[in-house]
Amino acid sequence: MENIGAVFVSEVVGTAMLVLLGTGVVANVALAKNKGLGGGFLMVTIGWGFAVFAGVMVAYRSGGHLNPAVTLGLVAHGDTEFGMDVPVNAVSVLAYIGAQMIGAILGAVACWLAYKQHFDAEPDPANKLGVFSTGPAIRSYGWNMVTEIIGTFVLVFVVIAFGRQGETGGLAALGPLPVALLVIVIGTSLGGPTGYAINPARDLGPRIAHFILPIKGKGSSDWAYSWVPVVGPIIGGLLAGWAALVLLPLLAT
Amino acid sequence: MENIGAVFVSEVVGTAMLVLLGTGVVANVALAKNKGLGGGFLMVTIGWGFAVFAGVMVAYRSGGHLNPAVTLGLVAHGDTEFGMDVPVNAVSVLAYIGAQMIGAILGAVACWLAYKQHFDAEPDPANKLGVFSTGPAIRSYGWNMVTEIIGTFVLVFVVIAFGRQGETGGLAALGPLPVALLVIVIGTSLGGPTGYAINPARDLGPRIAHFILPIKGKGSSDWAYSWVPVVGPIIGGLLAGWAALVLLPLLAT
Amino acid sequence: MENIGAVFVSEVVGTAMLVLLGTGVVANVALAKNKGLGGGFLMVTIGWGFAVFAGVMVAYRSGGHLNPAVTLGLVAHGDTEFGMDVPVNAVSVLAYIGAQMIGAILGAVACWLAYKQHFDAEPDPANKLGVFSTGPAIRSYGWNMVTEIIGTFVLVFVVIAFGRQGETGGLAALGPLPVALLVIVIGTSLGGPTGYAINPARDLGPRIAHFILPIKGKGSSDWAYSWVPVVGPIIGGLLAGWAALVLLPLLAT
Amino acid sequence: MENIGAVFVSEVVGTAMLVLLGTGVVANVALAKNKGLGGGFLMVTIGWGFAVFAGVMVAYRSGGHLNPAVTLGLVAHGDTEFGMDVPVNAVSVLAYIGAQMIGAILGAVACWLAYKQHFDAEPDPANKLGVFSTGPAIRSYGWNMVTEIIGTFVLVFVVIAFGRQGETGGLAALGPLPVALLVIVIGTSLGGPTGYAINPARDLGPRIAHFILPIKGKGSSDWAYSWVPVVGPIIGGLLAGWAALVLLPLLAT
Repeated sequence: MENIGAVFVSEVVGTAMLVLLGTGVVANVALAKNKGLGGGFLMVTIGWGFAVFAGVMVAYRSGGHLNPAVTLGLVAHGDTEFGMDVPVNAVSVLAYIGAQMIGAILGAVACWLAYKQHFDAEPDPANKLGVFSTGPAIRSYGWNMVTEIIGTFVLVFVVIAFGRQGETGGLAALGPLPVALLVIVIGTSLGGPTGYAINPARDLGPRIAHFILPIKGKGSSDWAYSWVPVVGPIIGGLLAGWAALVLLPLLAT
Repeated sequence: MENIGAVFVSEVVGTAMLVLLGTGVVANVALAKNKGLGGGFLMVTIGWGFAVFAGVMVAYRSGGHLNPAVTLGLVAHGDTEFGMDVPVNAVSVLAYIGAQMIGAILGAVACWLAYKQHFDAEPDPANKLGVFSTGPAIRSYGWNMVTEIIGTFVLVFVVIAFGRQGETGGLAALGPLPVALLVIVIGTSLGGPTGYAINPARDLGPRIAHFILPIKGKGSSDWAYSWVPVVGPIIGGLLAGWAALVLLPLLAT
Repeated sequence: MENIGAVFVSEVVGTAMLVLLGTGVVANVALAKNKGLGGGFLMVTIGWGFAVFAGVMVAYRSGGHLNPAVTLGLVAHGDTEFGMDVPVNAVSVLAYIGAQMIGAILGAVACWLAYKQHFDAEPDPANKLGVFSTGPAIRSYGWNMVTEIIGTFVLVFVVIAFGRQGETGGLAALGPLPVALLVIVIGTSLGGPTGYAINPARDLGPRIAHFILPIKGKGSSDWAYSWVPVVGPIIGGLLAGWAALVLLPLLAT
Repeated sequence: MENIGAVFVSEVVGTAMLVLLGTGVVANVALAKNKGLGGGFLMVTIGWGFAVFAGVMVAYRSGGHLNPAVTLGLVAHGDTEFGMDVPVNAVSVLAYIGAQMIGAILGAVACWLAYKQHFDAEPDPANKLGVFSTGPAIRSYGWNMVTEIIGTFVLVFVVIAFGRQGETGGLAALGPLPVALLVIVIGTSLGGPTGYAINPARDLGPRIAHFILPIKGKGSSDWAYSWVPVVGPIIGGLLAGWAALVLLPLLAT
């Protein structure tokens, strides 16, 4: 039972690190007067990718999920144990997801502090919200959901496949690097339509922070869209867990 | 024999992953209203490189060919076994290539779904085809073929050399990372004239998908060019296999 | 005692390498007529990241601190030994920090030599100082300090967490690569407001070089701001050491 | 003696691969109508960096020098053996350098074939020469030499330090990746003034190819500058070998 506390702390710290660095790169390219202003989409994907690297590096004790879609995907895949001998059950799943939400909110607050003056200097409320949460390039809840499902499917399916490869192929030496590169390519390749939330905590946590924080000249938190980057990634993660359950054993006949 | 089924599934899944992420990055930089619009050639090469990383990661059981030019290059090199104790013969070669073609079509369909609204919003039919298949910057079947032969030669020759180095030098810890970096540099350095198909399945599979799918406002599938990124990579792969057969043993006197 | 001399030389050489390559990339993108002029913020972060890679690679004997904030963070964390069996005490801490300052000055001088003609050709004194030292996008000592504290906290906290992971998870095979990637993401994600000094020696050493060197048409060395990228990183490093001391053992219950 | 033949072939093949991919990325960003036209300096540095990765990967039997400055730096460092038990003497040094020159010429010819139509379509002779060989941003043989000396010093010094670290720290698992990242950062950080030849074969071999090949509308091969990227890198490599001989043992007291 005491290990639940350890994985909780691990996921809070790791998700806070992930979200601080991930929202930070968007702040840098999008908010007025920053040195990275207009740095481009590739810089954003590299920032988010290595944000995952840093987050997983500090949260390795809990397996570095940092994402409810990963946690639920592992459940769907039938895993019986998370990191540190913590059994998979309702309590541990809630501990993971609760920690991820708290960490995401804390990370977004830290980003706001680091970029405080640039939030103040930025005239466009949409750019401010864009630092915290994703939004669609062309709004259409159905198609936006499809994009988020596909992106999260790729993330969770490859992560599970990689876990199996690690067991047999000794890839553990690379640590969190493969996941970071995977997040980079999901960004470059599936991030165009919705900004690739692919993580309910990464999107909802910062949106709550945006809603609560006294950000100068902020506009709407766009709650109308907020369920898409929550429900889409959860569906994608579950589908990936089931697909891995069916497909991966086929490969090992 | 049952392992033929396993490598078939592995190559379908891996090639679908590769093509989804590879065509996705082109969609992101080329189709209207995307967040990555105009992201540049470097972003495209990084997207395709790490698409290979993800594809090989899920297809490691079959050796992660994902490319008929690699499969045929290994045949020319005189390999007697693919992954999972599958012997090299007409049946297994056809299984690999058939799986790669099916996977490539599936991946392209998934890309179309992820970017559905942006295909609809994009006015230029050439940009739509460009997401699926390569085309020459300056059309000249002979010289375009030369470029594809050279690019594929580099890919297959270095992959075979790397396989040998892995045996003796312990590079296996890097997993698919070296191949990903190799694909990045082939893109940056040999991708200018033809968009570097260097893989018949990667080009022909999505072209078939483009032909079949009900893409709004699509134009020609450019079948006149379609044989170049099939024949060129096959020639390049075979030449690389033979060159490796002759050259690499020289280095180990 | 003789090992103090070895770590001193190691930190001088490593910090000189770090600062030569780090200030060099800024010179390339910022000074007139360079081939990399206008190369963008992503290029700067990649340059600084792999500058750390090269610096740590040559300074591995001393643990590759290259940064007083790292050295002091390890002290706050309660480490009793630096690299090469050198005990943590006032003498060794001063040796590390003194070596880092000397190395940073030497590296900045080498950068000036490599870019001599471009310093001469550049008309704007602010661009010349910008090669050597950081400056704020929006001047406000308090908020600039907050940004530097957060950035350095991330650096030192993750480095300490990584050290622990290395002990248990065998990540040592990656050498200095994780730290390089971490510095890249701190740049992309927290570098917008202040240019991410996150290292007192990296900022103050080159500023001293700027003050001393006979740079054609140079302006002020901006001593009014100079204490921020010294004090901020020291506070961030100390906080990270203490936080790691409290948090990391929690994860290993 | 037969091993001299093996290292000769290895260096020819590896240097040809390096130069094909390295000159290729410049062709892609600089020659008319390429898909990568205007891709930027970062793309060039990434292309050259991973070109080194590919070249060293195929030339691992000979130690992957691919560069007379590296070969001569190892001589200055007092190494008594190159790869494959080949002793360091006048014959083996000439074999390495001769192979590097031949490989560089072959690689440049292959690049010309891959980009044949774009050489024909490009109106500016300076852009054509720029694909093959480096040139200074501001011509001044003395200062251009200083820049080349510093860049090559960094390359050879860190490579030698890395070799020692590999012996003691087990970094061999990364294969040629550290050298590739080092070449990237030398490009981003010291490539502005002269385009970072840092390798006499890489510059002189392609210049000879430019002189000989029937390139449509080519201009001068700029022989007046040609000695700078030969002599500068040789001086830098020798200085690095001697510096490593003096400094690195100090770190291991």
